[in-house]
Amino acid sequence: MPKMRAAIFVEPGRIALDEKPVPDIGPTDALIKITTTTICGTDIHILKGEYPVKRGLTIGHEPVGTIEKLGSAVTGYREGQRVIAGAITPSGHSYACLCGCLSQDGPGEKYGFKAMGGWRLGNTINGVQAEYAVIPDAMANLSPIPDGLADEQVLMCPDIMSTGFSGAERGGVKIGDSVVVFALGPIGLCAVAGAKLIGATTIIGVDKVPARMEKAKTLGADHVVDFSRVDPVEEVMRLTDGRGVDVAIEALGTQATFESALRCLRPGGVLSSLGVYSSDLKIPLSAFAAGLGDNTIVTTLCPGGKERMRRLMSAVASGRADLSKLVTHRFKLDDIEAAYDLFAHQRDGVLKVAITP
Amino acid sequence: MPKMRAAIFVEPGRIALDEKPVPDIGPTDALIKITTTTICGTDIHILKGEYPVKRGLTIGHEPVGTIEKLGSAVTGYREGQRVIAGAITPSGHSYACLCGCLSQDGPGEKYGFKAMGGWRLGNTINGVQAEYAVIPDAMANLSPIPDGLADEQVLMCPDIMSTGFSGAERGGVKIGDSVVVFALGPIGLCAVAGAKLIGATTIIGVDKVPARMEKAKTLGADHVVDFSRVDPVEEVMRLTDGRGVDVAIEALGTQATFESALRCLRPGGVLSSLGVYSSDLKIPLSAFAAGLGDNTIVTTLCPGGKERMRRLMSAVASGRADLSKLVTHRFKLDDIEAAYDLFAHQRDGVLKVAITP
Amino acid sequence: MPKMRAAIFVEPGRIALDEKPVPDIGPTDALIKITTTTICGTDIHILKGEYPVKRGLTIGHEPVGTIEKLGSAVTGYREGQRVIAGAITPSGHSYACLCGCLSQDGPGEKYGFKAMGGWRLGNTINGVQAEYAVIPDAMANLSPIPDGLADEQVLMCPDIMSTGFSGAERGGVKIGDSVVVFALGPIGLCAVAGAKLIGATTIIGVDKVPARMEKAKTLGADHVVDFSRVDPVEEVMRLTDGRGVDVAIEALGTQATFESALRCLRPGGVLSSLGVYSSDLKIPLSAFAAGLGDNTIVTTLCPGGKERMRRLMSAVASGRADLSKLVTHRFKLDDIEAAYDLFAHQRDGVLKVAITP
Amino acid sequence: MPKMRAAIFVEPGRIALDEKPVPDIGPTDALIKITTTTICGTDIHILKGEYPVKRGLTIGHEPVGTIEKLGSAVTGYREGQRVIAGAITPSGHSYACLCGCLSQDGPGEKYGFKAMGGWRLGNTINGVQAEYAVIPDAMANLSPIPDGLADEQVLMCPDIMSTGFSGAERGGVKIGDSVVVFALGPIGLCAVAGAKLIGATTIIGVDKVPARMEKAKTLGADHVVDFSRVDPVEEVMRLTDGRGVDVAIEALGTQATFESALRCLRPGGVLSSLGVYSSDLKIPLSAFAAGLGDNTIVTTLCPGGKERMRRLMSAVASGRADLSKLVTHRFKLDDIEAAYDLFAHQRDGVLKVAITP
Repeated sequence: MPKMRAAIFVEPGRIALDEKPVPDIGPTDALIKITTTTICGTDIHILKGEYPVKRGLTIGHEPVGTIEKLGSAVTGYREGQRVIAGAITPSGHSYACLCGCLSQDGPGEKYGFKAMGGWRLGNTINGVQAEYAVIPDAMANLSPIPDGLADEQVLMCPDIMSTGFSGAERGGVKIGDSVVVFALGPIGLCAVAGAKLIGATTIIGVDKVPARMEKAKTLGADHVVDFSRVDPVEEVMRLTDGRGVDVAIEALGTQATFESALRCLRPGGVLSSLGVYSSDLKIPLSAFAAGLGDNTIVTTLCPGGKERMRRLMSAVASGRADLSKLVTHRFKLDDIEAAYDLFAHQRDGVLKVAITP
Repeated sequence: MPKMRAAIFVEPGRIALDEKPVPDIGPTDALIKITTTTICGTDIHILKGEYPVKRGLTIGHEPVGTIEKLGSAVTGYREGQRVIAGAITPSGHSYACLCGCLSQDGPGEKYGFKAMGGWRLGNTINGVQAEYAVIPDAMANLSPIPDGLADEQVLMCPDIMSTGFSGAERGGVKIGDSVVVFALGPIGLCAVAGAKLIGATTIIGVDKVPARMEKAKTLGADHVVDFSRVDPVEEVMRLTDGRGVDVAIEALGTQATFESALRCLRPGGVLSSLGVYSSDLKIPLSAFAAGLGDNTIVTTLCPGGKERMRRLMSAVASGRADLSKLVTHRFKLDDIEAAYDLFAHQRDGVLKVAITP
Repeated sequence: MPKMRAAIFVEPGRIALDEKPVPDIGPTDALIKITTTTICGTDIHILKGEYPVKRGLTIGHEPVGTIEKLGSAVTGYREGQRVIAGAITPSGHSYACLCGCLSQDGPGEKYGFKAMGGWRLGNTINGVQAEYAVIPDAMANLSPIPDGLADEQVLMCPDIMSTGFSGAERGGVKIGDSVVVFALGPIGLCAVAGAKLIGATTIIGVDKVPARMEKAKTLGADHVVDFSRVDPVEEVMRLTDGRGVDVAIEALGTQATFESALRCLRPGGVLSSLGVYSSDLKIPLSAFAAGLGDNTIVTTLCPGGKERMRRLMSAVASGRADLSKLVTHRFKLDDIEAAYDLFAHQRDGVLKVAITP
Repeated sequence: MPKMRAAIFVEPGRIALDEKPVPDIGPTDALIKITTTTICGTDIHILKGEYPVKRGLTIGHEPVGTIEKLGSAVTGYREGQRVIAGAITPSGHSYACLCGCLSQDGPGEKYGFKAMGGWRLGNTINGVQAEYAVIPDAMANLSPIPDGLADEQVLMCPDIMSTGFSGAERGGVKIGDSVVVFALGPIGLCAVAGAKLIGATTIIGVDKVPARMEKAKTLGADHVVDFSRVDPVEEVMRLTDGRGVDVAIEALGTQATFESALRCLRPGGVLSSLGVYSSDLKIPLSAFAAGLGDNTIVTTLCPGGKERMRRLMSAVASGRADLSKLVTHRFKLDDIEAAYDLFAHQRDGVLKVAITP
């Protein structure tokens, strides 16, 4: 039985490179040879033991690779084809999928719904920070990479580009909207790019790290606000002539970003919340207009499926969105522990790392 | 100068009948002779001093009456015509109105938005618990009563029918949806009727007052749950085969109803919150799926405007919705203080009172 | 190899009962023992040779039955379970399905789209007017029948209830809308019921057959118009006080119904077209407001998938919609040729036939 | 009584400069001193007698100017302020406006709807190709020009930018969509820019005039197709890998553009039709998928109102959309007959003319 290297969750505080058998596949799966992958903020939650996964599980949910082997029931693909798959891998045939809720299907659950959403790779099944990975429900999830696009150009599609863009999409951004994005980490930066892509005409980024604020400007932010220097809510109100924003996106999941985002909204506005919360959140009476504000709060789990991936790669191919500039560091899989160390401690201005075999 | 009787806010704890001049009108206003009105839960917040209004203000925002006099610039109506107007009286020409946010316009504000929404009658201008009342922006707000409908049949349209129905509408109820409504007061009961009207096929009402639960059944509830006897979240899960509801409506604004509603939702579901909050609300991490649930929370302020009123009266006229059965008690305007006393203390199974001159 | 009886397309003008082998199934299929099925207007198009299918194909796309056998990769069901499947059987994993267009997937096509839509049963693969039928992509399509519902109560769900209701849904019917339905055949009658279910408050049915007009009244029509006696467009205008309808549904596909529906629309209204066209249609300049009307025309192919079926059966189970009253005649499978004869010639007031083994 | 110059409709074939009194205003109107205006394709329909207006009417519906005088009931503006107003001037208080159909209100009609839509300036009341013009319902329509924007930068907002962008918006363009635009005149070019602004990633422009195709590329077209050289439907299919486009926009209103657009659609796609039709249109059976295609056809009349104008000017101010490059020729009002001559005959590569006093 051939062996491969894989990054596994050992125990809280420790993700390590290990050796495992190259996995078998079932009739509807595909085996992918990973050519590039990356580390997500969620992986750091796993590393720290804040998000529970089984010990020994292979981590990682952002695959770029080539098809090594196809399940017996999989048609429409060929071995050797370059593909990506989304972080969330919908089955397509669950009740959730069939009512348009592609991120919430969990096969085996009575109604196809489960509390943790439909996230499987590197969560409930082995992930992709490895030499090979199994993609379940391959026909719903494998998306061929358009000719001419390099791995790093599509590396953000499986998760942060899909998530960040959905922050703007689920916020219902329309032509002429003003949008604020709280927290300019990788997902917040993608939210800035997404808001620009769909027609926001005033985009305000809030953070305190100068390099991130600069990056936000190159991705579409018209204004950046350093919350360590000025009150960001007051500044957003000033920049919108006292009107408040149409859509506020928060990409961190803390009380500060959540509450500030609420306070920036115009009545009738939408708070699009992308952060993975780590504690209870409070909706202050004074921020939520006491039920008189026609407000909306939406949370969104990274949209997946091959059609979503196709659309995002089309945005990359057209030149409308270049998120490859978020890759600040590159590692070999053998050095993935060093990559985790860098990324977990947010050193050296790291935004995203690219990991290759 | 002719005089009239009007119920005014005297001080916290006291709303009293007083004598005032019959008001003058401006060019875009109309003077309405009130033939029937009612008392709203919000009026009780005012009575208790929990919601600030100016001393001496006439209270009330649910007018049924006849046109007494039209402003010089008002066309398309005639004196003597029977009309209603919504509790919220949009101008039609604000930025908020013109982007479809009819409840959030506040003339005089820089951008037509203000924190307390566009609610004017009995809030920022004199209301309708009086012999006569001024309806501002009459051409946007006066809605003729269809022939054959009595005052009490349309008395719920201006506020609770519009608000309750919007709870279901803003929740995006679709054919085959399951809906739970927490708190079966007048607005919750209207939410039940609204959910039925637009296609929910499993409607669950939660309260502890037997008479309200019975009323809910007559308005469309398929199941009622007594939260004083069973855990309502568990019961809702049981009734939906473990799936959770598509839409949860809460009509009280307390932490208990808000949080229970969240916990009943299927992933991807919508919490439609109609309650007027009286304190901060908490979103428990465990209830909101830690950002992984694709959930939505919407708050809605009673939709107004003559077109909304026309539609609601059409629902009444067609026999699809009969909310007149919510009127449990009747008073003369002279006895309005007794009506407030009854309604504020929720005695004798009161749901709504009808007040006539 | 066991044999079974099946109704097959022999040649234009002839559908006949034949003997065939009970079919084999693949890993993702299910074999269903048909307990009740029916004949659709589309089958008559096939019979007449107006719609091309392969000679020898088993006809029929409205299955009610029990699971006889499950493919090796199918989980979540058990043999003997009572189920239905929609007329359209989406795979769930095509590009079309994954962007929410469940009726338009065609496995094997380059992008999952094909001109004739995703209709397979009795069109591109053998259908269900037989003792046994294969349902492809079983996990996306088999929907268990709720306890207590008889076959005839769910017999309309696979096609005409789904199609008719979608006419109202795709028209965007809202509370207080006025809706006209042209042609009160089985699908038009379902459109009436669907419009009522989602909140239309003025529903007008147009036909000339008295029995159909009467049936429309029992399903929700507030008014019926006999087009052989009065000009239906003028009458609709009169019934809507000169305003026109918000949504016009036409359920026949002729120039007369299509054009009349357009002429009844208020500016900004929606024509929801359900008919299967048999010739070119003309949009008269004077009917379509010369591009100045903000009008919308939508066509809809019967929505399928197990979640859709679950929702429709929930509407039946709740008592909100009883379409079983459309069954006017009953036949044994052995007599299906007589059933076709009756239905094709629309004799004896036939609306729908029920066919049992 | 002071006099002014104005371009009036004299008779079919003749629009001429004339002298008229400077108009009076009513309490809700504003008098605008026109600083820049332009000629629209619709004006040419009027010139040719194809679209009926009263003899002597001042033509034009694209005003840029300064407030000369405000009606007695108009607040929130000051004389001398630079403003624009949309081609369509909604009242804000009609039934149509209050249900979100801002382009379809016609004061005085029973329900606020009328067949020709809510277009008033230069259609049912005097227009803006003059030294002064009356803007009705000023509070709903006057939109202040942001500091720093020149007249020509906002000259396209009142009509063609609003119309062209709405072609993409009403088509429901989403991230990753492919869009084709048939006819690259001024409105088609704006549709290209609008499709890009809201996230289309493959935009195909079809025309035969090289200069227009070049302009389309600078505004966002990824591909241009010369229909005089290749079959545009085949070419669109090739460019979309046989899939068809998600949204087809036609901006001419002929059978050729309408039908070709239909034939390019993927099943489930949307035809967004912006052209002003001059004859009946035919929907060929083979193009519209015989009712099996889940297709949508939408027509849209230029969205107006001050909020729409604010949003479009915000897009200009942000640098996201620069339509001033469509101005190819400039004239003085005294020479407007020459401008009409040039524009009507489409000489010298004219796209839009700017006319100043």
